[in-house]
Amino acid sequence: MNVKHTEEVEAQPVTMEGSSGCQVRWLVGPRDGAPNFAMRQFEVAAGGYTPRHSHDYEHEVFVLEGEGVVFENDTAHPLRAGDVVLVKPNEVHQFRNTGASPMKFLCLVPNDSMQKPISMAPECGVELPLGKK
Amino acid sequence: MNVKHTEEVEAQPVTMEGSSGCQVRWLVGPRDGAPNFAMRQFEVAAGGYTPRHSHDYEHEVFVLEGEGVVFENDTAHPLRAGDVVLVKPNEVHQFRNTGASPMKFLCLVPNDSMQKPISMAPECGVELPLGKK
Repeated sequence: MNVKHTEEVEAQPVTMEGSSGCQVRWLVGPRDGAPNFAMRQFEVAAGGYTPRHSHDYEHEVFVLEGEGVVFENDTAHPLRAGDVVLVKPNEVHQFRNTGASPMKFLCLVPNDSMQKPISMAPECGVELPLGKK
Repeated sequence: MNVKHTEEVEAQPVTMEGSSGCQVRWLVGPRDGAPNFAMRQFEVAAGGYTPRHSHDYEHEVFVLEGEGVVFENDTAHPLRAGDVVLVKPNEVHQFRNTGASPMKFLCLVPNDSMQKPISMAPECGVELPLGKK
């Protein structure tokens, strides 16, 4: 059994192309002995966003703090603490902080996602009014 | 993509032998199209606990609210919001609320856990002072 607090885990900048103002903590993953899936916590600064992309594996997301949106193609779904998102394989998606404070969420992925390709999506849609469906 | 709030998901009583005061919400699972693993939220009332048991699949846990302990065999690890627990396959474990308010945590499991056997553990150890390692 491993027990730790989130803040004991180093926050690393997300350097992936198309992201801005994002940090990630790998809370549980293969290095801890997790056999099937990994739990990461993302922190997105005010105005920040994750890449607009797709891949053939899922995300299971739980919003902890802050306010934002998740884009499903060009549709923005508003997000607040306690919201849950299933991003299915091959869906184009992007998370954006639309609030004034950091947006924190858990994002879980299958372990084999680390070896899989990611497709960047064109930036159409990001000019949509944020928070509007 | 599925987006919903935790409170839109029905809370069901946990009727498993050896549990007390527990409710579960299946936030994301196979019925939603999740291909690999399921996200549940547990709410344990003051004084409540999950069964003391083991199984050959893992739990990945994130504590959202409240105070409690997780037993690893007879060792009680204190828990508070932001704590993360990896329960590895075949480890005897039990979650207990030791606070005055509900304890809420996410607990994720692989999808194939639903078909797997669970072994109840003897109740030795539950007399340990709660919160003490």
